[in-house]
Amino acid sequence: MTEPEQTGANPADDTIAALATGGGGAIACIRVSGSKALEAVSRIFSVHSGKSLRETEPGKMRRGIVADRAERIDEVMTVRFEAPRSYTGEDTVEITCHASPYIANRILSLLIRHGCRAARPGEFTRRAFLNGKMDLLQAEAVADLIASSSAAAHRTALNQMRGGFSMELTLLRARLLEFVSALELELDFGEEEGLVFADRNKLQRNATDIAAIIDKLKNSFAAGNAIKNGVPTAIVGETNAGKSTLLNLLLKDDKAIVSEIPGTTRDVVEDLAVLSGIPFRFFDTAGIRNTDNRVELLGIERTFKKTAEASIVLWIIDARTPDAQVSKLAEKLLPLTADKKLILVVNKIDVASPEQIAAKTILLADAIPDRLFISALAGINADKLEARLATLANITETDEHETTVTSVRHYEALKNASEALVRVGEGLAANIPSDLIAQDVRECVRHLGTIVGAGEITAEEVLGEIFSKFCIGK
Amino acid sequence: MTEPEQTGANPADDTIAALATGGGGAIACIRVSGSKALEAVSRIFSVHSGKSLRETEPGKMRRGIVADRAERIDEVMTVRFEAPRSYTGEDTVEITCHASPYIANRILSLLIRHGCRAARPGEFTRRAFLNGKMDLLQAEAVADLIASSSAAAHRTALNQMRGGFSMELTLLRARLLEFVSALELELDFGEEEGLVFADRNKLQRNATDIAAIIDKLKNSFAAGNAIKNGVPTAIVGETNAGKSTLLNLLLKDDKAIVSEIPGTTRDVVEDLAVLSGIPFRFFDTAGIRNTDNRVELLGIERTFKKTAEASIVLWIIDARTPDAQVSKLAEKLLPLTADKKLILVVNKIDVASPEQIAAKTILLADAIPDRLFISALAGINADKLEARLATLANITETDEHETTVTSVRHYEALKNASEALVRVGEGLAANIPSDLIAQDVRECVRHLGTIVGAGEITAEEVLGEIFSKFCIGK
Repeated sequence: MTEPEQTGANPADDTIAALATGGGGAIACIRVSGSKALEAVSRIFSVHSGKSLRETEPGKMRRGIVADRAERIDEVMTVRFEAPRSYTGEDTVEITCHASPYIANRILSLLIRHGCRAARPGEFTRRAFLNGKMDLLQAEAVADLIASSSAAAHRTALNQMRGGFSMELTLLRARLLEFVSALELELDFGEEEGLVFADRNKLQRNATDIAAIIDKLKNSFAAGNAIKNGVPTAIVGETNAGKSTLLNLLLKDDKAIVSEIPGTTRDVVEDLAVLSGIPFRFFDTAGIRNTDNRVELLGIERTFKKTAEASIVLWIIDARTPDAQVSKLAEKLLPLTADKKLILVVNKIDVASPEQIAAKTILLADAIPDRLFISALAGINADKLEARLATLANITETDEHETTVTSVRHYEALKNASEALVRVGEGLAANIPSDLIAQDVRECVRHLGTIVGAGEITAEEVLGEIFSKFCIGK
Repeated sequence: MTEPEQTGANPADDTIAALATGGGGAIACIRVSGSKALEAVSRIFSVHSGKSLRETEPGKMRRGIVADRAERIDEVMTVRFEAPRSYTGEDTVEITCHASPYIANRILSLLIRHGCRAARPGEFTRRAFLNGKMDLLQAEAVADLIASSSAAAHRTALNQMRGGFSMELTLLRARLLEFVSALELELDFGEEEGLVFADRNKLQRNATDIAAIIDKLKNSFAAGNAIKNGVPTAIVGETNAGKSTLLNLLLKDDKAIVSEIPGTTRDVVEDLAVLSGIPFRFFDTAGIRNTDNRVELLGIERTFKKTAEASIVLWIIDARTPDAQVSKLAEKLLPLTADKKLILVVNKIDVASPEQIAAKTILLADAIPDRLFISALAGINADKLEARLATLANITETDEHETTVTSVRHYEALKNASEALVRVGEGLAANIPSDLIAQDVRECVRHLGTIVGAGEITAEEVLGEIFSKFCIGK
């Protein structure tokens, strides 16, 4: 049951360099990591105080000059970190220079001339993982943290980076390994009657307990995915009912083309907006056109598809639309939205008559209890719509320490672990031999292990897939 | 003759904070500077080792957590610098966090809540100037260095930042102050005959020497401006001769719209390209149309204006254009380009006949000796054109330590200083009283002083103008 070393030798023992900061700004930071980092930087950098970089204390910033032989390139600050006490776990040097692309390129070229190579996306964090500075979960959280654009996404990524989820998995794996030990004990003493049945009941309870924890994690993915990618929200409605105007109101800019010509929105517009701290992913679907009293769906496949993906559907109608026409539309739309959170948004109340508005307060009230009266153009009740969306998103303020699964990779591993545990439960119930049950428990341990990258050297393609999503310099 | 302290009290003794790095990337750096920097950061940051930031050694990077009360915001690195040993000369703290705009905004908000305020553009460098860490010349060079996009611009900015120009001005001002002393001596002993005339000849020689140095600096501005802003180069020619294609070839992308419809280029397209390490600013002017054998200039004012601004003019003709027509065009164009470096670029040689091309080798050979045969579309002889432009730009590889004036502000101060010196020379020749001459010398000293910001507290509006061109965070 010994686990292979995850801190094994770095297969690529070369020294990498990359710009770690974004374009523009006043200063830029170049990171160099690997066994030759100190040597490469020492050859292009001289400290003002006259000391060599090698002589300066790790973690201490030094001012000096980067030069290409006699030609000065920039006045910079450098700091070195010694393996294993660095981000990557390798010898690392960081050079902070002036933020001119010309200067950054010159310094990177010099480093490459002195034996470094340009880092690939995520390569610093990949090395941190390979050197055991963080597990795979934490490494993935670094990318999520950098990409986080809302409070909820930030909190989830930070908890994961800080090892909250990793700790839960470690505890789960420990319990499962205990389980295996118990099964092996049963195997050894299996012949003694009485003992077997007592253990089996206890094991069954244990399996149920663990399954509940894994299922809770697994089920947090719906919320986690919404936090990371936005709550999928479809805006549907008749041509010219004001879908694009509503979307713009919510996005607070002019992403969708708004026009008075019916059917302007030909393609599905998709955009992310953070409302009340919650990210929403809005789809503006093609309109539904009502021609010669015949209800037609334009771009019907797209509308269907996007509505199916959504968890919230905003059905927008013009308050002046005849009631009979709205009812006909409802026949088309309600079957599509049976399992969705549907809001009827009655638009253009600033131009409709009191009678028209009053009629819409009772129309289809049983089928669609949730409705709002707005003017997207005038911005009337936009705040109410935003508040209603936040409530429907149902992303509760999670505790900082509560784990939310946000990655499809993690979700699938949990699903596989859960399925293995179901087989364990069935095996225990059917009283099948302990060694077969132990196999399923080990399978469950293995799946949980893939999440943190423990239990085995994680396959190169998995690492490649994970780190290719990073930016260069991280 | 004592000069007012330039390191006087900072009129705004508040603590400023700003993001110093650009958008995107993996990490971001927030700078905090002012007497309350340490206090503000200490209230939101806790060091992993348990030590307080105040206890950590200046210049030493520390890992820790930024938190808003109980809510963790990010794992960061911080480093503090103690006044006056920092960039601004004030107590400074730098926080390196993950490059999520959400995180950077949260940290900046926290700092503001704890008594900092958002820094204005260039405010860190402005404080460095006010605290005597650098003179105005060096401060301005920081912005130039960050904006430098070519080797020449980089070299010039770096020399200026390192104080090369400042040193020259210091020496010049010392010589002028010596001059004033000699004049005052003459004033004291003015009654003794003989002494006066000996001094006046020596002073005259001295004035001529200093004037030559100032004029050399002043005259470097033409090259300096080209280095900083690009060598102004106009591309003129008949509609459809291939001006836009040539521009795209030089810019190596598709900035100008190229089309087969004559007269596509309606506006002057202006773009910067670095060719052979030299920046060029290209203007693609509106075409010259030849209708019914009448030569017309389209957008004539613009073409005139831009041609007048250019130091190099590329006149592009289609190799197939009848010789007589080219000659007629020459009558219009040559007067505009009398003081310019003019190259006749014979284009479309891949589609012209050998006879047509041969004719263009002798046509107008006396008036325009400089010509090149190319195909802009096929890229034929593009390298020759690039080499020719680099030669014509006449920006010689300046010594790293040779001063080149790149700023209009400096140029104007030098011009004023030069004019004052002319009056000094005239005064000496006309034998006017020493105290009047001394006034002009002091005027000259004052003008040179405004360049480095010494000799007087530089006017607020001058500082405002200079630092508003900086980016925030510098």
